[in-house]
Amino acid sequence: MEATKLEPLFNLQELEAKLNGNGRARANGLTGWDILSVDQFDRDKLAYIFGRAEEMREMVERVHGVDLLKGRVLACLFYEPSTRTSASFIAAMERLGGSVIPITQGVQFSSVSKGETLADTIRTLEQYADVIVLRHPEIGSARMAAEAAGVPVINAGDGPGEHPTQALLDLFTIKEEMGRIDGLKVAMVGDLRFGRTVHSLTKLLLHFDVSLRFVSPEILRMPLKIMNEVRDKGLDARETHDVADVIENADVLYVTRVQKERFSDLDQYNEVKDQYIITPDLMRQAKEKMVVMHPLPRVGEISPEVDADPRAAYFRQVQNGMYIRMALLAAVLGKA
Amino acid sequence: MEATKLEPLFNLQELEAKLNGNGRARANGLTGWDILSVDQFDRDKLAYIFGRAEEMREMVERVHGVDLLKGRVLACLFYEPSTRTSASFIAAMERLGGSVIPITQGVQFSSVSKGETLADTIRTLEQYADVIVLRHPEIGSARMAAEAAGVPVINAGDGPGEHPTQALLDLFTIKEEMGRIDGLKVAMVGDLRFGRTVHSLTKLLLHFDVSLRFVSPEILRMPLKIMNEVRDKGLDARETHDVADVIENADVLYVTRVQKERFSDLDQYNEVKDQYIITPDLMRQAKEKMVVMHPLPRVGEISPEVDADPRAAYFRQVQNGMYIRMALLAAVLGKA
Amino acid sequence: MEATKLEPLFNLQELEAKLNGNGRARANGLTGWDILSVDQFDRDKLAYIFGRAEEMREMVERVHGVDLLKGRVLACLFYEPSTRTSASFIAAMERLGGSVIPITQGVQFSSVSKGETLADTIRTLEQYADVIVLRHPEIGSARMAAEAAGVPVINAGDGPGEHPTQALLDLFTIKEEMGRIDGLKVAMVGDLRFGRTVHSLTKLLLHFDVSLRFVSPEILRMPLKIMNEVRDKGLDARETHDVADVIENADVLYVTRVQKERFSDLDQYNEVKDQYIITPDLMRQAKEKMVVMHPLPRVGEISPEVDADPRAAYFRQVQNGMYIRMALLAAVLGKA
Repeated sequence: MEATKLEPLFNLQELEAKLNGNGRARANGLTGWDILSVDQFDRDKLAYIFGRAEEMREMVERVHGVDLLKGRVLACLFYEPSTRTSASFIAAMERLGGSVIPITQGVQFSSVSKGETLADTIRTLEQYADVIVLRHPEIGSARMAAEAAGVPVINAGDGPGEHPTQALLDLFTIKEEMGRIDGLKVAMVGDLRFGRTVHSLTKLLLHFDVSLRFVSPEILRMPLKIMNEVRDKGLDARETHDVADVIENADVLYVTRVQKERFSDLDQYNEVKDQYIITPDLMRQAKEKMVVMHPLPRVGEISPEVDADPRAAYFRQVQNGMYIRMALLAAVLGKA
Repeated sequence: MEATKLEPLFNLQELEAKLNGNGRARANGLTGWDILSVDQFDRDKLAYIFGRAEEMREMVERVHGVDLLKGRVLACLFYEPSTRTSASFIAAMERLGGSVIPITQGVQFSSVSKGETLADTIRTLEQYADVIVLRHPEIGSARMAAEAAGVPVINAGDGPGEHPTQALLDLFTIKEEMGRIDGLKVAMVGDLRFGRTVHSLTKLLLHFDVSLRFVSPEILRMPLKIMNEVRDKGLDARETHDVADVIENADVLYVTRVQKERFSDLDQYNEVKDQYIITPDLMRQAKEKMVVMHPLPRVGEISPEVDADPRAAYFRQVQNGMYIRMALLAAVLGKA
Repeated sequence: MEATKLEPLFNLQELEAKLNGNGRARANGLTGWDILSVDQFDRDKLAYIFGRAEEMREMVERVHGVDLLKGRVLACLFYEPSTRTSASFIAAMERLGGSVIPITQGVQFSSVSKGETLADTIRTLEQYADVIVLRHPEIGSARMAAEAAGVPVINAGDGPGEHPTQALLDLFTIKEEMGRIDGLKVAMVGDLRFGRTVHSLTKLLLHFDVSLRFVSPEILRMPLKIMNEVRDKGLDARETHDVADVIENADVLYVTRVQKERFSDLDQYNEVKDQYIITPDLMRQAKEKMVVMHPLPRVGEISPEVDADPRAAYFRQVQNGMYIRMALLAAVLGKA
């Protein structure tokens, strides 16, 4: 092939100078990190991410979006559908000026149906993208993807495993709503046995001086392993079966769904289910300054009449998810 | 958690100044509006939107796209598939410099399958997005979404209800093609009973001094309610069964499909169907300056030989849809 | 309708000046082209595209993305799923500053289910988009789309027909990895009968002075038609049944899958299949400077232990796909 003398398309020196002007690039402890587990976060890292998330909120409120991640590409790879989480990551990337390859059908993947391994799919996508967000039904899939990839991988839920960005947004919401975390009484309500979000949030709360109240039906109690971690930390923690026991003193009421399917004995389910529905009546017994949270979607466990209560924070919690993900994307790409 | 002193990521004052330079923000009568129904549009509003849509066309032709909605995010939420409409809104947002969260699978929604209400889904998406476009099979869904949302909602079709942006692009096409609306003879052809588009277009035409001709099989006549509105306005309006009756005088021939499924008696269908196919033969009887329109997709009701006829406007009509949606997006976001 | 005097939204003269500053627009031999077949590319065109693709690589490595196609819209229309190819085109467009309408579900299309022809779907999308990428299961569909469209159409695979961008990225990878094409020994391995990629790559290699080795089971030999084209060119070409015959001298080993389904006699399949698996053992017999390629996905035909071998180029090959597609998009849109 003949050597071709093409007039250059780009003035790369000029573009590099401009790129650096888009946002102050600087090393931070998270550059290049995979975000796989809440175990990666200590108080310092949390403070850092929450500080950046607060900046993201102010930025969005004042100017909607920036060019911080302009030219960067996020591959958003969802092997099971999750409108809320994928939409949150997509909006986060876009508000930072980046672009998205949305692979969020949750239905069928051509490569999968052709027998490709997850590792090969990840190694393919990293050729196109600067960061990969992965939702996959199998525990350990995110770690496996991170080992295969040279670019940062963010775990958006690996089945019964972890969903660290959810736990971060939950804790961030507590801080934003209550102004602090230390000293609070946090009550978790509902399915504490299978609920991935309450497990991860509890782990993050171990870094703080909080009182914990766990409210669940007997068969859905918080796993022993986590209870022992709580006790090893010397935190004040109690378990109970009834929301009424905790409502008066709780600063945070974190509600999850009690699923009918968890009960082999339907009588048992019918007996307890009403104790786990948050109603205006119940809210009248709560403190004036406290906060009701929920990872959503909800299906009856918080009655819609509660939505107008200023203490109902679950939709603000959704918004916080976008800010946390913006902070994480900027951080792992070396731009925070 | 320790107070962290982070060097700020953004210079927000500078960014705010730049944002305002991206396009002249100014209040307009539509800022913050939900676009739910053609009933919201009078002659003034129509003139305003059409003027902006014309600017959008010139802009796209000359520079392809702008930064007017840079940083803004559109959630495009389609509960049933509509490639044409969703692609139109996505292109509209992108050509204005905005970003899109595409939730357009039309197949299954994780939140829906988990039992989430439409109101909760909308309240979730408004945490991420500045405007929501909704397509949903149930009548009234768009209004319900608009009531739930604090951000503008644009109805992209609520089942048998409304599809106002289609009616706006139809009317805009008439104006662009014929140079005016007052004084025209507009003939609507096909299924006038169930056709959502002809109902909405007729309602918009009530603001103008037009003659209307309604051409349909007996069982697919324009509903009495709409005929009465037309008569109350004092417009010249006639119904007929045969396109041949109107082809010579029509300035606008708006064609819709006569679906076999509407007929219980197939003989009846076979008897009439050929009267509703637009052919080159038929076009020879039409005026030299007139226009054939169709909301698409078509399945045989306009023969492909007509496509080369300069009076065939149905693909230009599609393009006008993008300009109308650009004008609406800019308007409801306070940028037009 | 009253004439409305709107203060103009845009300063189009200023925007036009800025647009031209985004990249040096200049005519090139490919402006406005449809990319349908490898037959469209001679040595000059290949040299041009490869030169641009190299620039794209350097640009991405240094500044991630540019504004070259800012404001332009790509409609990415995939009638069958292909995560790898659609993601590659999406990333390519986004890194050039353009936007994408992703219609990549590969499951159901509303317009199709409503009976719309491919030509009408294409004529609709060209109203919104500046370029269309089409994947469709039927041979000839891309050509048909190109005839319907006024904007450039890029064939991303038309069933048993062509997939020209794959062949271009394959050849580009050979050049990038080996520094040249003339003088190389290229061995193709596996299913040479039905493998679209090996057919197209062979056609491109006819422009160069290469030796060709075709390694396949008897029933999966390279079609006679292509073998005759190779011989007409006077190239040194041989067929064999065993990779072992070619491994020592090959500069390029292009591997494809031998599918069980191709064999009516399973004994025959079991007898030959192991001869077509690339293992570390086999690689020990290969030259120190050579390259193993694969169009992916792979399902066992290259053992994962080979991945760490620096001669394993299949993931770099994936990345080259993005650069080739960036070069093509820029070229057909008159910006390269």
